Amino acid sequence: MNDVDYCVVGGGFAGLTAALRLKQAGRSVALLEARDRLGGRTFTENRPDGSWIDRGGAWIGPGQDRIQALMGEFGVPSYKQYTDGEAMMFVDDKEYRYKGMIPWTMSPWAAMNLGAVLLDLGHLCKSIPIEAPWTAENADKWDRITLAHWLNSHVVSKSAHELLETAIAGAYTSAASEVSMLFVLYQMASGGGPGFVLGIEDGAQDSRPVGGMGAVSGPMAAELGDSIHLSQPVRRIHQDTDGVTVRSDDSSVRARRAIVAVPLAIASQILYEPMLPVDRSFLHQRMPSGSIIKIAVVYDEPFWRADGLSGQSAAPGSPATITIDACTDTGRPGVLCVITEGPIARRIGQLDRDARRGAILDALVERFGERARSPIDYVEQDWTTERYSGGGMLSHAPTGVLTQYGPALRAPCGRIHWAGTESSAIMCGWVDGAVRSGERAANEVMAYDTVAVAAGQSTDN
Amino acid sequence: MNDVDYCVVGGGFAGLTAALRLKQAGRSVALLEARDRLGGRTFTENRPDGSWIDRGGAWIGPGQDRIQALMGEFGVPSYKQYTDGEAMMFVDDKEYRYKGMIPWTMSPWAAMNLGAVLLDLGHLCKSIPIEAPWTAENADKWDRITLAHWLNSHVVSKSAHELLETAIAGAYTSAASEVSMLFVLYQMASGGGPGFVLGIEDGAQDSRPVGGMGAVSGPMAAELGDSIHLSQPVRRIHQDTDGVTVRSDDSSVRARRAIVAVPLAIASQILYEPMLPVDRSFLHQRMPSGSIIKIAVVYDEPFWRADGLSGQSAAPGSPATITIDACTDTGRPGVLCVITEGPIARRIGQLDRDARRGAILDALVERFGERARSPIDYVEQDWTTERYSGGGMLSHAPTGVLTQYGPALRAPCGRIHWAGTESSAIMCGWVDGAVRSGERAANEVMAYDTVAVAAGQSTDN
Repeated sequence: MNDVDYCVVGGGFAGLTAALRLKQAGRSVALLEARDRLGGRTFTENRPDGSWIDRGGAWIGPGQDRIQALMGEFGVPSYKQYTDGEAMMFVDDKEYRYKGMIPWTMSPWAAMNLGAVLLDLGHLCKSIPIEAPWTAENADKWDRITLAHWLNSHVVSKSAHELLETAIAGAYTSAASEVSMLFVLYQMASGGGPGFVLGIEDGAQDSRPVGGMGAVSGPMAAELGDSIHLSQPVRRIHQDTDGVTVRSDDSSVRARRAIVAVPLAIASQILYEPMLPVDRSFLHQRMPSGSIIKIAVVYDEPFWRADGLSGQSAAPGSPATITIDACTDTGRPGVLCVITEGPIARRIGQLDRDARRGAILDALVERFGERARSPIDYVEQDWTTERYSGGGMLSHAPTGVLTQYGPALRAPCGRIHWAGTESSAIMCGWVDGAVRSGERAANEVMAYDTVAVAAGQSTDN
Repeated sequence: MNDVDYCVVGGGFAGLTAALRLKQAGRSVALLEARDRLGGRTFTENRPDGSWIDRGGAWIGPGQDRIQALMGEFGVPSYKQYTDGEAMMFVDDKEYRYKGMIPWTMSPWAAMNLGAVLLDLGHLCKSIPIEAPWTAENADKWDRITLAHWLNSHVVSKSAHELLETAIAGAYTSAASEVSMLFVLYQMASGGGPGFVLGIEDGAQDSRPVGGMGAVSGPMAAELGDSIHLSQPVRRIHQDTDGVTVRSDDSSVRARRAIVAVPLAIASQILYEPMLPVDRSFLHQRMPSGSIIKIAVVYDEPFWRADGLSGQSAAPGSPATITIDACTDTGRPGVLCVITEGPIARRIGQLDRDARRGAILDALVERFGERARSPIDYVEQDWTTERYSGGGMLSHAPTGVLTQYGPALRAPCGRIHWAGTESSAIMCGWVDGAVRSGERAANEVMAYDTVAVAAGQSTDN
C-alpha cells in the first residue's frame, strides 16, 4: 500500500460505497477494514445448503433508493418479507393475535392509545427538517427530554407503553431513558415517519435482497479488488497541508483525503493528528451504540406458516423479545429470527451460551409449539462484543447532543471526511443511509479537490 | 521498564496516589503518563516571581480529608480563599452586589426562588445513597430526566433559572440538557449537598494549598522517582491469566495488575485485549467530558480588594462567566481567575487568542474598572484541547447511564482496576475524589493478590 488519491477507513456499506464510487470515477483508492471480513454492521453467512443468514442488517423498504440502486447495478433481486398469517403479541400476561401493524385485538383502550401515539409521533416528525433537525422550531424542547420521559407523560395505557418502549427503544438498542426525543423524531422523520420505522409491509422490513446483504457487498468488493485491505484496524490518521497518512499496526497509506466510515461510538479510538476540532471530538464522546443480539433458529421447514402464523411475535421483557420469519426466498429451510435489544440483550448476553439457547427455545416453544424445541441449527450474533462495531445497530444521540453537535455529523475536518449511516440525513440508521453517506462523501472529496484545482491551487495543497 | 508488581496508567492525582500508596506498601510500581507533565486535570505553573497559577483543579474544602492528608504528609499548608468584600452578579442586564452564597439583593422573588430550589436540591440529595445512587428509591425517575428539564419545571424566576443553569451546568462543564438529574443529585450528594458544591467559604472553594496543587503532586512524584515514565501514552493493555502487559508506542510494562486512572471520556482510546465486559466498554462510550477554559489575568496587585470587592462575579452568557480572586497566600501579584464553562467555553474557544483576550478584558473592565484593562500577564488554559484529559473537569453521566452502568464505575475487569475521581463515591469530581479513588484502587489490587495467596494460589495466577 502506498500513495492513492483517497483512503477509506471502514468496509461497511458506507465505506464500500464511497470506495466504489471513487474507483468508478477513475480515482485510486485504498479501503482499510479492521476485521477479516467486509460488511460492517451487516454480515451474511452463506450456508452449505445454499441458504444464507443475515447476522446483521437485513431489510430494505420503499424509499431506500440508493441500496436498491446498488442492487440494480449488481443484478441482485429482492423478495418480500413473509407476512401472511397472524402475528402474536404478549403483554401483561395476555396473548393477542392480530394482522397489520397495530394489535387492534388488544383492549380497545390500549389499541386506541397506541394508535393515537403513533399519529402524534407522525405529526411531530413532520416538524423536523431532516437535513438540520437542530433548527426545528422546538428543537431545544425535544432535545432536553428523553424518550422515556415522553412516553411516561404521553402513553397512559400500560400495555401500549410497554409495547412502544420495546419497539422504539429497541430501534435504538438502548434504554428509552438514554435517547433524546429530538433524536427519535429526527431518526423517524429520516425514514419518513413511525409507520415506516416500525412497519413491515411497505415499511423498513418490507423486503430483503436475495442472497442477503452479502449478495450486494460481495460484488462491490469484487469490483474494488485489491483496493481492499482486510485486518487493518486503523490506529492513526495524520493530516498535513498536503494530505493524510493513515496508519494501521503494520502499514500506512498516503492519500489526498480520508473518508472515515466507522460507527460514531468507536470513532474516537482512532488517534487523529492534529486533534480534531472540539465539536467533532466531543461528538465522538457523545453518541454511544447499544445492544442487540440477533439469533437465527433454523428448522427444516417454516412450520409456523402451516399453523397460520406469520412468525412475527413481540413480547416485551422476554429474552426472545421479537421474532420474525427470516426464511430465504425459497422458504427452505425455515428460519426464525430472534431479535433482542437494549437492556435485555445486555442481560442475556451475560448468560452462558447454553442457558441463553435454552431461554430462547423455551420462549419459541411457548409461541410456536413443541416443534420449535428442536432446530437443526442455532446461530447467534451478539453485536455488543463486536469490537469494530462498538454495538449495534446505530449510534444514538442522548439529550443535548443534536442541538449542540449536530452540524459536526457531516462537516469535514480538514482532509478528513465522514461517512456512516449516522451521517445521513435520509434513512439515518439503515443500510440505505450508509450507502447514501458513502456516495455523499465520495462526491465531497472529489468536489473539494475540483474546487482546489479551479482555484489554481495544486490538488496537493 | 520491565516487570513490576503493578502498573498505573495516568499521572493525575488518582494515578499518583495509587502508585504512591503501593510503593509505600513495599510494592514495585510503574506509572505511565501520556503527557510530558504530571497532574492530569490539575496543572500548576510556577512563575519566576515565586508565585504560581493553578491552570486546572485548585481548591479544597472541608470534608476533603484525603487530599488534606496528603498535604499533611508533605507539609503543604493551606490558605483561605479570599472572600472579603462584595461579590457581583449580572443577570437580565442588572447588576447586583451581595455577600455570601445567595444574592439576596436580587428581586425578592428571584432570591426566594433560588433559595427554595437550593433547599429542594439539598433535600433530594439526602435521598441518594452515594455508594450506589442507582439504588435510590426514585433512581429511575431522576435518571430519565435532564437537569435542563428539571430546572425548567421547578425554577419559575427567569433570573434564578439563568443563575442556576450557569452554576450547576457549569459544574458539569456541559449544557444542562446533557446531564442526568440523577447524576446531578449524586454528584452533589457526593460532596455533601449543593451548599458545598456551589459554596466558597466552608464549600468546595474554601481554601487552596500554598504553592498550588503542584506543591502536593511534586513531592509525590519525587517519592515515586524513577517509577514514573512521562510521555508514554498507553495504547494497549493485554491481560492473560498471569498478569497484564501495558504498551505505549515504544515500550511495555509487565505487571500483575493494572490500575487505569484516566478520565472516562477517553478510557476507550486504550485498546483492551481481550475486550472489556460489555457494561464497562459501554460505560466508556457513555460518560463524556465538557468544556472549561480557565484564564489567569495577572496584575501587579489585587486592586479590586481596595475597592471593597471580593473579585467574585457571575454573569451568565458572558465570555467571562465567572471570576474569582486567585492570588497566592501573599496576595501579590493580583490574580483574577476567569472560568468559562460549557457551551460558552466552546464558543469562545473558537475565537482567535487576541479576540478572546479582548472579550475577556472588556468584561473585566466592566466589572472592576479601567485598571483591569492592563494586566501584566494573561495565561489561558483550554481543557477541551487537552488530548489526554478529553475535556474538563469531570466526565458526566447523561440520562439512563447511572441506573444501567453505575456499578461498572468501580468494578474491576479481571486484572484491570479503575481509578479517577469519577469512580469515587465520596467527593466525585474533585481532586479529593481522585485521591480517594487512588487509595481505594491501591488497596484493591493488594487485597486481590492477598486473597489469591491466602487461597493457596500463586499470586501470578
